[in-house]
Amino acid sequence: MDRKYVIGVDIGGQTSKLGVVDARGNVLIQNVIRTDTHDDVTLYVKDFGAAVRSLAAQIEGGMDAIRGVGIGAPNGNYYRGTIEYAPNLRWKGVVPLAELVGREIGLPVKLTNDANAAAVGEMTYGAARGMKDFIMITLGTGVGSGIVIGGNVVYGRDGFAGELGHTTQVRNNGRLCGCGRTGCLEAYASAVGVARTAREILETTDRPTTLRDIPRDSITSKEVAEAAAKGDRVSIDIFNFTGRMLGAALADFVAFSSPEAIILFGGLTRAGDLLKKPVVEAMNDNLLDLWKGRVEVKFSKLNEADAAILGASALAWEL
Amino acid sequence: MDRKYVIGVDIGGQTSKLGVVDARGNVLIQNVIRTDTHDDVTLYVKDFGAAVRSLAAQIEGGMDAIRGVGIGAPNGNYYRGTIEYAPNLRWKGVVPLAELVGREIGLPVKLTNDANAAAVGEMTYGAARGMKDFIMITLGTGVGSGIVIGGNVVYGRDGFAGELGHTTQVRNNGRLCGCGRTGCLEAYASAVGVARTAREILETTDRPTTLRDIPRDSITSKEVAEAAAKGDRVSIDIFNFTGRMLGAALADFVAFSSPEAIILFGGLTRAGDLLKKPVVEAMNDNLLDLWKGRVEVKFSKLNEADAAILGASALAWEL
Repeated sequence: MDRKYVIGVDIGGQTSKLGVVDARGNVLIQNVIRTDTHDDVTLYVKDFGAAVRSLAAQIEGGMDAIRGVGIGAPNGNYYRGTIEYAPNLRWKGVVPLAELVGREIGLPVKLTNDANAAAVGEMTYGAARGMKDFIMITLGTGVGSGIVIGGNVVYGRDGFAGELGHTTQVRNNGRLCGCGRTGCLEAYASAVGVARTAREILETTDRPTTLRDIPRDSITSKEVAEAAAKGDRVSIDIFNFTGRMLGAALADFVAFSSPEAIILFGGLTRAGDLLKKPVVEAMNDNLLDLWKGRVEVKFSKLNEADAAILGASALAWEL
Repeated sequence: MDRKYVIGVDIGGQTSKLGVVDARGNVLIQNVIRTDTHDDVTLYVKDFGAAVRSLAAQIEGGMDAIRGVGIGAPNGNYYRGTIEYAPNLRWKGVVPLAELVGREIGLPVKLTNDANAAAVGEMTYGAARGMKDFIMITLGTGVGSGIVIGGNVVYGRDGFAGELGHTTQVRNNGRLCGCGRTGCLEAYASAVGVARTAREILETTDRPTTLRDIPRDSITSKEVAEAAAKGDRVSIDIFNFTGRMLGAALADFVAFSSPEAIILFGGLTRAGDLLKKPVVEAMNDNLLDLWKGRVEVKFSKLNEADAAILGASALAWEL
């Protein structure tokens, strides 16, 4: 039996999305299970196995037609197949998920972190197709990154390379980050960071803005983007601030690996040019002359769920 | 005839050092020519050719025993074999040095930048032997870097990757850097940066220090290191400041590629623990928990001239 499908899995804090992918990168069928219902990972693994078997039952050849499973997960370690101390998941410590899932379903399993999986997806099917050197920045609740050099994802010595959301952008009096340090890029350029910038402006200035109509503690980056799109000056300034912070950081990343392009991915990119324009400007303002105007900043061409599933599935093709 | 030697060349602003290297990494004989006497690169290439022939005449087999020439040069481009807009060299614009030299001597030539060459030397013969993932930081007049990931030097899309001396460490009111931007690591953590820190303290404070016995404009990092070694408190503080600035920057570099070690190389490392201690402390203070205490900071084990020649020569073995 020819094993002509792979399964890609995107593990998020609330749900895990599984998809059957063919060799052309079509997500043929999908399934969703909850990630957040079991403290005990072995119960999750049972749900996972049931979901895989349910998907397999819907394709010609069943389980025998599936080559393997690729998983993208927060704090996923490519070398060890583990999820390690993921703050947004209920399982604590080091979880040997690839091994547990492999035993449950009897198929080979590869695992990496979600941003690396997205980078592979982008390289295989998206905006980075044909590129050998690029950096993927995921702008969601946090800021993740997947770095590709010479066509290979950078994993580093321990499998955890590419934590660009935790480079320090503000050295003095920086915001407290979820990681316990201060001044991280993630504390500014994430969806949470945008909402925080909004709250800071509302609290420390009298500037008029439609954001004042929203209960302060529930403001989201989506609402800031909508207000900015309608011309709200404060909201536009929030995206300028966010974009310039990110753009300046990107200039440092370019000095590291001299990529062809930076691909931006995730919820914040829905703000479009409101975000992209200050990002590109600040990046070029901060680049060495030799790179000014030569590094492309692109938005992902894949929708979020597909990119994560496709990227994870690409790991399984390598099995 | 078996071609059992290579020639490694270290091009500096004032002199170029050429050495014949055997397969075991012994620099058998050396020769030095001036880099700064000719505005016209074709005259330099003639001197270069004469130096190569003079070296060849001293080894068994002559030119026929030499496999090729590897060159490390400031702003050297590995892909194109060019030196591009090097501020410390007299030749302006883009100089196709590998091609010119190759034509002059009739041997294959490979060229890269000096910090990348030093990284290759360290990996082949020095403190990074056996390492697949490390970052080399050269602390001389400027701050250079050579990044190795998975055993390969990172060149990036255009051959210019690894300009970590020009990542921005001070975002507001940073020092003017030689590159025209402000706040670069190089403006603080280089020999020139140390002297500048000294002058700033002398100008803006009344603190007693033996550095006041030196004409202010001629203070060098070497003198600051000597005063610090003798217990001069201001000089010790200067190295603490320099080391902490560098260490904080290293933490960001670790977040990028998760290396096994950082290798420090060049004149400033002669300050020993005066520099290394604050570097290691500040790096660990700024690292994510998962890396704290797990990234080694080492000084190069090769002397400066040898490392550059050996690293450049390693390029020639690949020919």
